[in-house]
Amino acid sequence: MENCQFCNISNHRIAADIIYESNLAMCFLDNRPISKGHSLVIAKEHFDNLYDIDDESLYEIHRVARLVSTTINQIYHPLGINVVQNNGEHAGQTIFHYHVHIIPRYDDSYNRALEAMARKRVRVDLSELGPVGNEIRSRLTP
Amino acid sequence: MENCQFCNISNHRIAADIIYESNLAMCFLDNRPISKGHSLVIAKEHFDNLYDIDDESLYEIHRVARLVSTTINQIYHPLGINVVQNNGEHAGQTIFHYHVHIIPRYDDSYNRALEAMARKRVRVDLSELGPVGNEIRSRLTP
Repeated sequence: MENCQFCNISNHRIAADIIYESNLAMCFLDNRPISKGHSLVIAKEHFDNLYDIDDESLYEIHRVARLVSTTINQIYHPLGINVVQNNGEHAGQTIFHYHVHIIPRYDDSYNRALEAMARKRVRVDLSELGPVGNEIRSRLTP
Repeated sequence: MENCQFCNISNHRIAADIIYESNLAMCFLDNRPISKGHSLVIAKEHFDNLYDIDDESLYEIHRVARLVSTTINQIYHPLGINVVQNNGEHAGQTIFHYHVHIIPRYDDSYNRALEAMARKRVRVDLSELGPVGNEIRSRLTP
């Protein structure tokens, strides 16, 4: 897609600090990093999000995410690493081309943010959750 | 592992609201859900985290995560879905058995938390980031 930033990186029309590249996936440093080693793994082919990515690209991306995460862990010894994949603007997706964030953590900021979010959020109404398991199961095994 | 909660769920020794099960993976509702449909996909075999999971389990988990996310999206039409995999206590991992969170979002709370975290965090020292690409690349292609 012509106007897709990640398609243009995948086609080498836009520069990026590319760490790893294979037939189906590419990994490069995020250009607005949250932390040292913050990287993105993208499908070289265009898929908007998780709902439409095919098996081969999905598997290759997660193989590369494991490889790069393990390598970052060995080099920089972060306290932890989050692997995050966002679908939809309200879930933090800003570029609508399937990608996975690898975010090394060197302090407790992520846990503190999770706690703050947990304190603020509206409690889940458990009565509303009762049928959820049945609803999802019945779609998966009709 | 005897004392691992997710091994015990995988072996059906501890009950869970299981949505989907295959030879290598299992998906069940989180018992302290953040939102309607919050689910976990686990490897049935024990792996501590991303660094030690094998190909087959990794691929199967992400296949199941795509299947369940797509189904939740079709049933509940959330505004977005985050797929999150945490490695290490400081990255929010509380059970040390590889698992992926599927978190549907029905409001903007996640984006607001990301913004709050961005405001609070120490700016990344870009001079420190200069060699990062080279350091990671040289490990990946020695």
